[in-house]
Amino acid sequence: MSSEGKTWVRMVTAQTPTNIAVIKYWGKRDETLILPINDSISVTLDPNHLCTTTTVAVSPSFDSDRMWLNGKEISLSGGRFQSCLREIRSRACDFEDKEKGIKITKKDWEKLHLHIASFNNFPTAAGLASSAAGLACLVFSLAKLMNVKEDESQLSAIARQGSGSACRSLFGGFVKWIMGKDKDGSDSLAVQLADEKHWDDLVIIIAVVSSRQKETSSTSGMRESVETSLLLKYRAEEVVPKRIVKMEEAIKNRDFASFAQLTCADSNQFHATCLDTSPPIFYMNDTSHRIISLVEKWNRSEGTPQVAYTFDAGPNAVLIARDRKTATQLLQRLLFFFPPNSDTDLNSYVIGDKSILKDAGIESIKDMESLPPPLEMKDANKFSGGDVNYFICTKPGKGPVLLADQTQALLKLLIVTYILHKKFSFEMLTILFAQNLFFNLKQVVVYGKAQISCREITTSLV
Amino acid sequence: MSSEGKTWVRMVTAQTPTNIAVIKYWGKRDETLILPINDSISVTLDPNHLCTTTTVAVSPSFDSDRMWLNGKEISLSGGRFQSCLREIRSRACDFEDKEKGIKITKKDWEKLHLHIASFNNFPTAAGLASSAAGLACLVFSLAKLMNVKEDESQLSAIARQGSGSACRSLFGGFVKWIMGKDKDGSDSLAVQLADEKHWDDLVIIIAVVSSRQKETSSTSGMRESVETSLLLKYRAEEVVPKRIVKMEEAIKNRDFASFAQLTCADSNQFHATCLDTSPPIFYMNDTSHRIISLVEKWNRSEGTPQVAYTFDAGPNAVLIARDRKTATQLLQRLLFFFPPNSDTDLNSYVIGDKSILKDAGIESIKDMESLPPPLEMKDANKFSGGDVNYFICTKPGKGPVLLADQTQALLKLLIVTYILHKKFSFEMLTILFAQNLFFNLKQVVVYGKAQISCREITTSLV
Repeated sequence: MSSEGKTWVRMVTAQTPTNIAVIKYWGKRDETLILPINDSISVTLDPNHLCTTTTVAVSPSFDSDRMWLNGKEISLSGGRFQSCLREIRSRACDFEDKEKGIKITKKDWEKLHLHIASFNNFPTAAGLASSAAGLACLVFSLAKLMNVKEDESQLSAIARQGSGSACRSLFGGFVKWIMGKDKDGSDSLAVQLADEKHWDDLVIIIAVVSSRQKETSSTSGMRESVETSLLLKYRAEEVVPKRIVKMEEAIKNRDFASFAQLTCADSNQFHATCLDTSPPIFYMNDTSHRIISLVEKWNRSEGTPQVAYTFDAGPNAVLIARDRKTATQLLQRLLFFFPPNSDTDLNSYVIGDKSILKDAGIESIKDMESLPPPLEMKDANKFSGGDVNYFICTKPGKGPVLLADQTQALLKLLIVTYILHKKFSFEMLTILFAQNLFFNLKQVVVYGKAQISCREITTSLV
Repeated sequence: MSSEGKTWVRMVTAQTPTNIAVIKYWGKRDETLILPINDSISVTLDPNHLCTTTTVAVSPSFDSDRMWLNGKEISLSGGRFQSCLREIRSRACDFEDKEKGIKITKKDWEKLHLHIASFNNFPTAAGLASSAAGLACLVFSLAKLMNVKEDESQLSAIARQGSGSACRSLFGGFVKWIMGKDKDGSDSLAVQLADEKHWDDLVIIIAVVSSRQKETSSTSGMRESVETSLLLKYRAEEVVPKRIVKMEEAIKNRDFASFAQLTCADSNQFHATCLDTSPPIFYMNDTSHRIISLVEKWNRSEGTPQVAYTFDAGPNAVLIARDRKTATQLLQRLLFFFPPNSDTDLNSYVIGDKSILKDAGIESIKDMESLPPPLEMKDANKFSGGDVNYFICTKPGKGPVLLADQTQALLKLLIVTYILHKKFSFEMLTILFAQNLFFNLKQVVVYGKAQISCREITTSLV
């Protein structure tokens, strides 16, 4: 490993989307390799609104592998992280940057330590597939760092070992995770069915639903379902294979009616197998049920589906509207029935692509309060505020990207500052980087405790 | 038809229990004959706490068939009522009461009209199987009135045509509805597996849960499940037959662990097939889910099931405790987590067999409020009042009974008063009869609008 002294740092930053399954993955045939009992299909969500950004850094000055998630150090000792690190390291290739005098051989990678900083631009524990985006981003950025030659599908088989659904986040648009047959899992990987431009009419609104109950983790939930649900085996073997064929066809033909019918039926069947588990698992709550009723009634009144719904291992609704006009009408319905708490402002109640809100003619809480009841549910009651925490407006989006060098310039400067002066904590810097990468400096949207204004920090740095 | 003038009335009063399925009936193979797609097994509930009382009267002075339910006249024109009336009339036999000079031949029954008054001693629309008890009672009382010779199983095949689960209310204890094979439904009937004395340790607590949602009727719900749920067919053909065998064995051996495991799993699977229906059907709500969690956690902490839960087509929980001691502990847990609204008194919050409440050491709201949290859920929060409307404490009970003549004396007197003087409305009288038959005069428990004190009316009569 050539280097002048031990001060160099090689860094890569990548951004990876989340995804939402429309034909669900539930149940593993191999717990260690994370091999599923059926194929699944997902839609990748626009990384502008939901993504993970990860900076991976390698330096001879690092004396152990460390990782920070949303600015907080987390353990890398888990079997799943270790699987991903091991698999990527074993595929690492020679790397040389003559300008900086960095040369790393295939063998060096085994000894060099990593610092990894990951940031989600959305709440981590809210059931929004943060682990899918996170593990996909970890694998993708490490692969770039280590000059790994494998393509996205081959990388997806590694990401799969970190978190099953992560493998589907290696592509944009519409993605299929092929369950595979091999015992070693080498053929259990993701392929792209169509990119996000293939069907760009679709608009997605996510309702982040309040929950009083602690949820069963999907890992233990699916293990219990495999062990105890008599319906799950039948679903995986008899129902899903036929649905996969139909869903591929629906996506190919941009056939929204079939797409919506299959998406809703498969979400419901997944939750049915959770209920058939012993002890039963409830991910949806009364608010989820009400959102389903609202969509079902509207779809029926229109005679053909306007909106598809799907729910992962939590109460949040992911609603896919056939087009922008429908999405506008959907948002009006959602805001009519699920007003915010009195202390919530509109700006933080509807986030993501706010142009839908504008199209819906809603610019203030007052506009929202004067919304008329939808024709098909004239007599239905509004619900009290607070059942939904907020809505995210988004759309199908692109796959992982490596962030360009100019954005990294700041990162490098700051990392060097950190290493030499230890002036800022690494955690704080990584938050800054991550935010700086995808938020306009004028408009820093922050979540939870990690409230840091990029403007403030950059100012103090200058 | 011999009679002196047209003033005679022949009357029969019967009382029939409700039942709760522990292996569920969901789905018909024949909608008109009400033939199910699988066998089911139920526990009959003690008629002291949940039953229908029906008085059927025949008189040459009646000029049409009429029926009153809980004091309100209802239409008899429905196909299901007509099926029951037709089937019973076709089996009517000669009847003679020499003392009163009444002689009715087989043929007379076709021309004579009926007045039927039915009363439930529990809320009718609260999802407590009122139609099962009601139709069973209609068929049973008409059969007695018309001197029908068929046994209970044969009568159950008639009651089945009124409401599927009604057939299981023709017996006490533990009852199996055999789905049968014949196209005409003649072999689709109920048989008793064991009477209520066979396993008299069991104690049942029903939580009547508040609901904001209008529920799908079980008739249309099961039709939609048959048409759209891919899991239902598999359940009916592959899962239920094995469970029926195991459940019969568990009941025979009074094996509570197996009984509870099967009961809970089958309730959950029934609701899973509802969720797998398009559009999905939700009968359980967040309160139902919380009751399940409470029971599951307790059962797990004890290492062996203490309580089984089962839910019909609504959010109400039917909880079966292994014995009286367990039921006492269960009631303490339920009252700890689900306190009443501040304006509800204990006496109307826990009804039925109040001795369980006494065993639990709870004689006032204050006693309830000072209940300690259960050991296995020390850190769990209480829920706000009002999630549960009230609890009914009961146990497995006996089958239909014909009410003795002395109780009918008053009925006859009053009916004659009615016919001759039209002083009281027939509706009011029937409520009086019904209440008088199973409530102590000192303690009239009344529900909803039908608030009539027996004492008042009898006083005014005297």
